[in-house]
Amino acid sequence: MTKPTTALKQRTIDLLNERGVELAAIADLVIFLQKDYIVGLTAEEALASVQTVLSKREVQNAIITGIQLDIAAEHHTLMEPLQTIVERDEGLYGVDETMALSIVDIYGSIGFTNYGYIDRIKPGILSKLNAHEPGIIHTFLDDLVGAIAAAAAARLAHDDTGEQDTPFK
Amino acid sequence: MTKPTTALKQRTIDLLNERGVELAAIADLVIFLQKDYIVGLTAEEALASVQTVLSKREVQNAIITGIQLDIAAEHHTLMEPLQTIVERDEGLYGVDETMALSIVDIYGSIGFTNYGYIDRIKPGILSKLNAHEPGIIHTFLDDLVGAIAAAAAARLAHDDTGEQDTPFK
Amino acid sequence: MTKPTTALKQRTIDLLNERGVELAAIADLVIFLQKDYIVGLTAEEALASVQTVLSKREVQNAIITGIQLDIAAEHHTLMEPLQTIVERDEGLYGVDETMALSIVDIYGSIGFTNYGYIDRIKPGILSKLNAHEPGIIHTFLDDLVGAIAAAAAARLAHDDTGEQDTPFK
Amino acid sequence: MTKPTTALKQRTIDLLNERGVELAAIADLVIFLQKDYIVGLTAEEALASVQTVLSKREVQNAIITGIQLDIAAEHHTLMEPLQTIVERDEGLYGVDETMALSIVDIYGSIGFTNYGYIDRIKPGILSKLNAHEPGIIHTFLDDLVGAIAAAAAARLAHDDTGEQDTPFK
Repeated sequence: MTKPTTALKQRTIDLLNERGVELAAIADLVIFLQKDYIVGLTAEEALASVQTVLSKREVQNAIITGIQLDIAAEHHTLMEPLQTIVERDEGLYGVDETMALSIVDIYGSIGFTNYGYIDRIKPGILSKLNAHEPGIIHTFLDDLVGAIAAAAAARLAHDDTGEQDTPFK
Repeated sequence: MTKPTTALKQRTIDLLNERGVELAAIADLVIFLQKDYIVGLTAEEALASVQTVLSKREVQNAIITGIQLDIAAEHHTLMEPLQTIVERDEGLYGVDETMALSIVDIYGSIGFTNYGYIDRIKPGILSKLNAHEPGIIHTFLDDLVGAIAAAAAARLAHDDTGEQDTPFK
Repeated sequence: MTKPTTALKQRTIDLLNERGVELAAIADLVIFLQKDYIVGLTAEEALASVQTVLSKREVQNAIITGIQLDIAAEHHTLMEPLQTIVERDEGLYGVDETMALSIVDIYGSIGFTNYGYIDRIKPGILSKLNAHEPGIIHTFLDDLVGAIAAAAAARLAHDDTGEQDTPFK
Repeated sequence: MTKPTTALKQRTIDLLNERGVELAAIADLVIFLQKDYIVGLTAEEALASVQTVLSKREVQNAIITGIQLDIAAEHHTLMEPLQTIVERDEGLYGVDETMALSIVDIYGSIGFTNYGYIDRIKPGILSKLNAHEPGIIHTFLDDLVGAIAAAAAARLAHDDTGEQDTPFK
């Protein structure tokens, strides 16, 4: 009944790329978040953690839905007042952050600190997504990208202390 | 910058009505949830609690966004695979429940039990919304209506023990 | 710095057993929740899913902390008014449910419905834990056991549709 | 059956004071978080928002429970391995942050950014609480104080745009 996860994952990555987000840019955020905590963290390890996060169905669904809403707002096809709210990226909208938090949740409470921190500092790709250029709407995407990075960083934090992810199979 | 809350609230109620949900039907769910706990709960009190929940900006935004996605799916304007996922109300989609949980959250953890319970039992209006009639899509709306009722019931449970909502002003 | 996860996991299982909860009783709850959805689900599969949930550090920590608070309340060593609140399992306490929800969270939003449902119906071991016998306090444990079952059921629901848990390594 | 909220609120404030946290220090965190967003925010307004957050039952319960666990750890009365985990404020423990997030939740998703930000920056009272002096354990308290400030700041952000908190009574 459902699409195979690998197809959904590739579709998710393609959509991120089409909207200007390379996985390497998300991996850079992971390194930004973890560089003080995990000695010698490589770009490859950060990227692999991003890939693992993107393998989760719930993450894929949140990303695809958020990008759909951004695109619909660019095409002016949302009903009012939603069109105006998403266009302006209004601070109290909250649905964008709710969807982002559903991604952060998956690796437990320690991801929240990461998310809040980069959402406020907006390093790297996040400042580009947040530039509010005319005709380009990333109301959902900037929160989602921050959430993927925060989740991938939390996952590495768990691994770094020797915690096994799935010891039973 | 933002629309006045009263206008947003009325817009939210109008959208619920247009999609076949009267506030009285949500109040019935509140009574279903609380009848064993609050002796003599009236339809008026249940309705007033639903109204209070609908006054919250975050609740309004979740409802408007979810209904927008349901309508877009009815009009076949979502991109794939999102169109198919929302059309089929796929069990692992999760974004509908994430948005519902953001409503339940507002009155604390005791709302979650209410939400899970009616989402599984599907009394009253929830079974109608869940009928999956051809051409009618309520993937988001059924979860949102359950969440409004669960939040309104949790709010009454807090009030019933004499807790004050906002003693400082 | 941290204890190996396998030791923490065994300690968690030992504590559950000491407090009267066999893993088989939690597996029974999983079957209760999933029997209408997964055809031919065996007790072995349900138990294996419970074991996987119990391998998560965050789950172990929540269980150990909740049982500690139950035991302290039995020993009358909590300060007031916490002693009275935990002793009476007051409906608005909320911390027990907050800790339970942190377990449910790990397998995404679909676990919440399971949790709310069994928390209200209280099948099997949950009705025993909820009996409020004199001198025995399970304010935290009953919510935690429901959460473990709800998470294990949600995990099986994800697996059942062919979703891979961790395709990248 | 339950204690009146005003008594519980006073008990919560007394416990915060006994553990070295004046409400004015939390109000300072609120101003730190909101000074770039709300022009002319006064110490009185920040303090009033902290007071409103502390009027919520769920907030009171989280604070009292967390401080109880900190005190029990100082008295070496927790069972192992919980005693060691709380004593060391281990990064993957997570229960402290789970309880903090239940406070942040109450004012919606915009509180999470505030919380994550000050939890990482640790301004004012948070750096004192986080000093890890011998014999003094604030594993729960530092997260709870950050959460109260984040919630109070989110509440002001909602108010500042003219949103009414409880228009129906």
